[in-house]
Amino acid sequence: MIIVMKPNATEENLARVKEKIERAGLSYHLSVGETRTIVGVIGDKKIIGSIEENMSVLDGVEKAVRITEKYKLVSREFHPEPTVIDVAGFKIGGEELAIMAGPCAVESMEQLREAASEVKKGGAQFLRGGAFKPRTSPYDFQGLKEEGIRLLLLAGRESGLPVVTEITGVRELDLFEDVDVIQIGSRNMQNFELLKEVGRTKKPVLLKRGMAATLREFLMSAEYILAEGNPHVILCERGIRTFDDYTRNTLDLAAVSMLRELTHLPIIVDPSHATGIARLVPPMAMAAVASGCDGLIIEVHNDPMHALCDGAQSLRPEEFDRLMGKVRRIRDVVNE
Amino acid sequence: MIIVMKPNATEENLARVKEKIERAGLSYHLSVGETRTIVGVIGDKKIIGSIEENMSVLDGVEKAVRITEKYKLVSREFHPEPTVIDVAGFKIGGEELAIMAGPCAVESMEQLREAASEVKKGGAQFLRGGAFKPRTSPYDFQGLKEEGIRLLLLAGRESGLPVVTEITGVRELDLFEDVDVIQIGSRNMQNFELLKEVGRTKKPVLLKRGMAATLREFLMSAEYILAEGNPHVILCERGIRTFDDYTRNTLDLAAVSMLRELTHLPIIVDPSHATGIARLVPPMAMAAVASGCDGLIIEVHNDPMHALCDGAQSLRPEEFDRLMGKVRRIRDVVNE
Amino acid sequence: MIIVMKPNATEENLARVKEKIERAGLSYHLSVGETRTIVGVIGDKKIIGSIEENMSVLDGVEKAVRITEKYKLVSREFHPEPTVIDVAGFKIGGEELAIMAGPCAVESMEQLREAASEVKKGGAQFLRGGAFKPRTSPYDFQGLKEEGIRLLLLAGRESGLPVVTEITGVRELDLFEDVDVIQIGSRNMQNFELLKEVGRTKKPVLLKRGMAATLREFLMSAEYILAEGNPHVILCERGIRTFDDYTRNTLDLAAVSMLRELTHLPIIVDPSHATGIARLVPPMAMAAVASGCDGLIIEVHNDPMHALCDGAQSLRPEEFDRLMGKVRRIRDVVNE
Amino acid sequence: MIIVMKPNATEENLARVKEKIERAGLSYHLSVGETRTIVGVIGDKKIIGSIEENMSVLDGVEKAVRITEKYKLVSREFHPEPTVIDVAGFKIGGEELAIMAGPCAVESMEQLREAASEVKKGGAQFLRGGAFKPRTSPYDFQGLKEEGIRLLLLAGRESGLPVVTEITGVRELDLFEDVDVIQIGSRNMQNFELLKEVGRTKKPVLLKRGMAATLREFLMSAEYILAEGNPHVILCERGIRTFDDYTRNTLDLAAVSMLRELTHLPIIVDPSHATGIARLVPPMAMAAVASGCDGLIIEVHNDPMHALCDGAQSLRPEEFDRLMGKVRRIRDVVNE
Repeated sequence: MIIVMKPNATEENLARVKEKIERAGLSYHLSVGETRTIVGVIGDKKIIGSIEENMSVLDGVEKAVRITEKYKLVSREFHPEPTVIDVAGFKIGGEELAIMAGPCAVESMEQLREAASEVKKGGAQFLRGGAFKPRTSPYDFQGLKEEGIRLLLLAGRESGLPVVTEITGVRELDLFEDVDVIQIGSRNMQNFELLKEVGRTKKPVLLKRGMAATLREFLMSAEYILAEGNPHVILCERGIRTFDDYTRNTLDLAAVSMLRELTHLPIIVDPSHATGIARLVPPMAMAAVASGCDGLIIEVHNDPMHALCDGAQSLRPEEFDRLMGKVRRIRDVVNE
Repeated sequence: MIIVMKPNATEENLARVKEKIERAGLSYHLSVGETRTIVGVIGDKKIIGSIEENMSVLDGVEKAVRITEKYKLVSREFHPEPTVIDVAGFKIGGEELAIMAGPCAVESMEQLREAASEVKKGGAQFLRGGAFKPRTSPYDFQGLKEEGIRLLLLAGRESGLPVVTEITGVRELDLFEDVDVIQIGSRNMQNFELLKEVGRTKKPVLLKRGMAATLREFLMSAEYILAEGNPHVILCERGIRTFDDYTRNTLDLAAVSMLRELTHLPIIVDPSHATGIARLVPPMAMAAVASGCDGLIIEVHNDPMHALCDGAQSLRPEEFDRLMGKVRRIRDVVNE
Repeated sequence: MIIVMKPNATEENLARVKEKIERAGLSYHLSVGETRTIVGVIGDKKIIGSIEENMSVLDGVEKAVRITEKYKLVSREFHPEPTVIDVAGFKIGGEELAIMAGPCAVESMEQLREAASEVKKGGAQFLRGGAFKPRTSPYDFQGLKEEGIRLLLLAGRESGLPVVTEITGVRELDLFEDVDVIQIGSRNMQNFELLKEVGRTKKPVLLKRGMAATLREFLMSAEYILAEGNPHVILCERGIRTFDDYTRNTLDLAAVSMLRELTHLPIIVDPSHATGIARLVPPMAMAAVASGCDGLIIEVHNDPMHALCDGAQSLRPEEFDRLMGKVRRIRDVVNE
Repeated sequence: MIIVMKPNATEENLARVKEKIERAGLSYHLSVGETRTIVGVIGDKKIIGSIEENMSVLDGVEKAVRITEKYKLVSREFHPEPTVIDVAGFKIGGEELAIMAGPCAVESMEQLREAASEVKKGGAQFLRGGAFKPRTSPYDFQGLKEEGIRLLLLAGRESGLPVVTEITGVRELDLFEDVDVIQIGSRNMQNFELLKEVGRTKKPVLLKRGMAATLREFLMSAEYILAEGNPHVILCERGIRTFDDYTRNTLDLAAVSMLRELTHLPIIVDPSHATGIARLVPPMAMAAVASGCDGLIIEVHNDPMHALCDGAQSLRPEEFDRLMGKVRRIRDVVNE
């Protein structure tokens, strides 16, 4: 941490700052500039983080600037090698793109069976489908819940594809025992109680970025899971909220490249929720792969017009197929 | 709902649209314009809401425009009279401003006792204090939890002030039995499982707006609580996330006036979290009252420099006192 | 400037950094921390500003953090006393609120004469009206231009009110010779050529904040005007662009309080453009005054339904009148 | 336009609305719903656009919803074939990617000569370089101006590459007579006087999206140029301003795909300004091409550490070279 003193700070103000630093068991260096004195605080970064806010309240202090981040377990500095997560033999974060696909919501066994077969044909290694659906309106379809999980697991077993599905609350955790990858949605990215509880399982967790989350906050939420002992976290960029009104969200692909530098965790992209418009999904999926992500999660529905949820953003199986061919060729260019 | 057909839509496209509308049990009117045909859909707004997304997928459809909102119980159209919430004789949403004040985090009985006495002197009717603290970092102080609730209730009883404190997960609900007002924080505004569970209690709920929540989403989250049978919801504007980097969030006071038109629920403002800077709290509190809100929730700490949380945004008791005098006189001007 | 070295930076990397600093005629202090070395750069802040970007490119450098701002003439540090601008005996930035009111666009002499008389009755000291109108669409009414200026000046002279009107390009400057206050709109806040040219006049300039401008950028644009020799700049907050979709823009009143600390220039607020909705103008005007601004600029039209521009956000004269009474009483509370 | 009446609107309110529509020479259709009446307005879209705002002020009107856009000349509806712009035999908007590259600022003839030779080797068809530099601070390097243009034209002629350079004000227009493509920067996207003047030339114009511009506003600004008779407009996405703080701006690649649907004009992407960080330029350039853009504009500098401007975001020639190979292979995948 750097503490910038005001131009008119007194010797007494500075003495007070030094005293606080020393009391916290930290040390410092002074830089006396032409108009300002700057105090560099040195020591354990967790302790520094904990006094940061209180320093800015001291008389004579203009601002306290954070230099190092508070996250540690997720950071590449701490763990330089990329993390590869292995789910039933399929890898996320490895050489090959990880593809998760399927309907927004689980509707019936027929639907899932068909979806599983179609996405597998296109090359997906994971079957996604929502059983518990977090919806903005209490009057919208909230998912088949327990029955949805049962159907999804069945379809997964039949097709040989591991399944990915969203949890919306801690009370559902028991139902997720056989689920392969637990998804935490954007709206729950800072539901810290839920993060802690999935952190105590050993299951792979797909953590989606919140709509207004900075990368620092996103990584801190992942840190909650790792801090509880679960290192199997997959980050997912799915669009942020901006003034832009043509698409549902604004897909932030520079975040993929930036996260790559900051963390060793695998990073995937959800072009379906990012845009909310099926015809924008292929170009954004291709762009995501070009930006260097480790995989994609895509909504595919064989009858989007009758989907119970998010039909407007679902690809038809044949569109998915065509897209998979293209993203693989782009991946080859990236890997060259 | 209005369905706008593309300029090149065929008769067949239009027939398909009509058929879908009729199958859903709805009716329509056509407006045939010079370049486009527009279909006005008429009927039950919940059914309309449920088919909206699927209509936009049909061939020949340019877009589907929502005309009415899906929320009902919270809307002023449905319930024109303002809701006044009575907590132990103190009213929120009535003639008088409701003032909730106290430290960010419960730290000790001494601290709380002093805070309660100070804020009561300044005219606050409610004591606030955090026992469960949702923190961005897992390494930051997370609150005294169960012990914090116990201390807060004790301080409330001693001072005669009802207490307001935040819940962070459904598993804590039992501990909140004697709490007067349950707060749901910004990060949990769309934690729908938590909304449903507090909706099943009959306790007043203080619901904070999410950092990137539109007013529609904010009201929908309140609707979740009312739909479960709990009509005692207080809305709280606490700043939104924007590109602005001088303050922690951007306080959106026009939202107060706009919410006033859209809903009958009381609306309060949190100038402490909105700005994150103590010296901006008084002007923003005054501005909030001038904008017509029903109350304020303010952080007050008798030793901000040693606060375990959010010291930088806490007022000292004497500052709080002075501010209360001013906001009351502004309230008088507003009420004239 | 603070230069943060990467944890794995070599001695050579550091030597290169030091060399660059010294070559620029600056000096430095080192803080050697547990994981990182930090270099505090000391010297003339304009020179520091000019090398900042190039430092971040050097090998081994993690980031370069700006400590002091580049603006000087507008800063309160440099000029602690508030600036009061006197226009024909009316003051902006003094004890009394400065009120500028009138129609969005100049339409006719009758309209202006009536508007001037109405707003003067309500207590406005300035008549505003647009002759050159920057419009999003080339097909919208672009103002009466030269003729509009003529009418406005005439109405100003008749009523004894100084006039405020917007300039949209450098070629119009000659027509503004008799205009009392030249307004630069949001869309031109970073039209640096225009800023420089109005900076060479000695006329008061009302500079509106750009829709996505940080306070730093806003102040830098004002600095352009002062740097050319014109110290008569009035800053105007008029709403920023956010994800919020209920109002045209999001009025950022914390910016008023923050600007008050950063600069000595007077600050006014435009609640009409900030909201775009006439019924939100009174609460936002009151809130603005409560936040401590020096004045307001408000659209008033005696027949909003037939206004050629922005009718939806114009107050009727009787609404304006009532509002003026209230804002003055709020101002008294603020000044106490 | 659709006019939505309030649930409690009277017959008289409706009669007034109808009368206004008819007086404007337009016609309408009514949809009488269960709670609301909806009026579809039919006729010339420019006239509709001009009365829109005034309709929303009428008593009994809840809102007026725009159905068609006001832009016409730029829209794909009006002109379905993509526009291909030919500059000295090089095409923008055709089969091949158009690549514009060079230093941020023109510094000297040696620098430009070297840059031109390097970027040509990498396959760029256009040489970019800034002579007039719009800078946030008046104290930053503002470009070599007239001399910069002269050097750029010379380097263009020597290398056989057409040149692209930014104009910052109408008074500079004469100096741009021999420039091949005139760039209008983000800060001037709504400098309507400048748009009109470049619209009266016949030169290709590279129009950058404003930092907070919606696609509608962006297209409207292009419409200003076309409306003056100049159809040679190239749109450029260069990042928008969001809450995100890791990159300078947030690159909005879904805008590329969306613009493709809305307009026939060519669309290029500037990954250098979008990120502000050289090491993010290659992944974002690749992503941009994968999203389907027609070209790229990239900053290349042979000595980024000593660049007078934007060194932190400039690629070294060898990085540019490698990148060009990759984007061409991605382009092939997109074109398949």
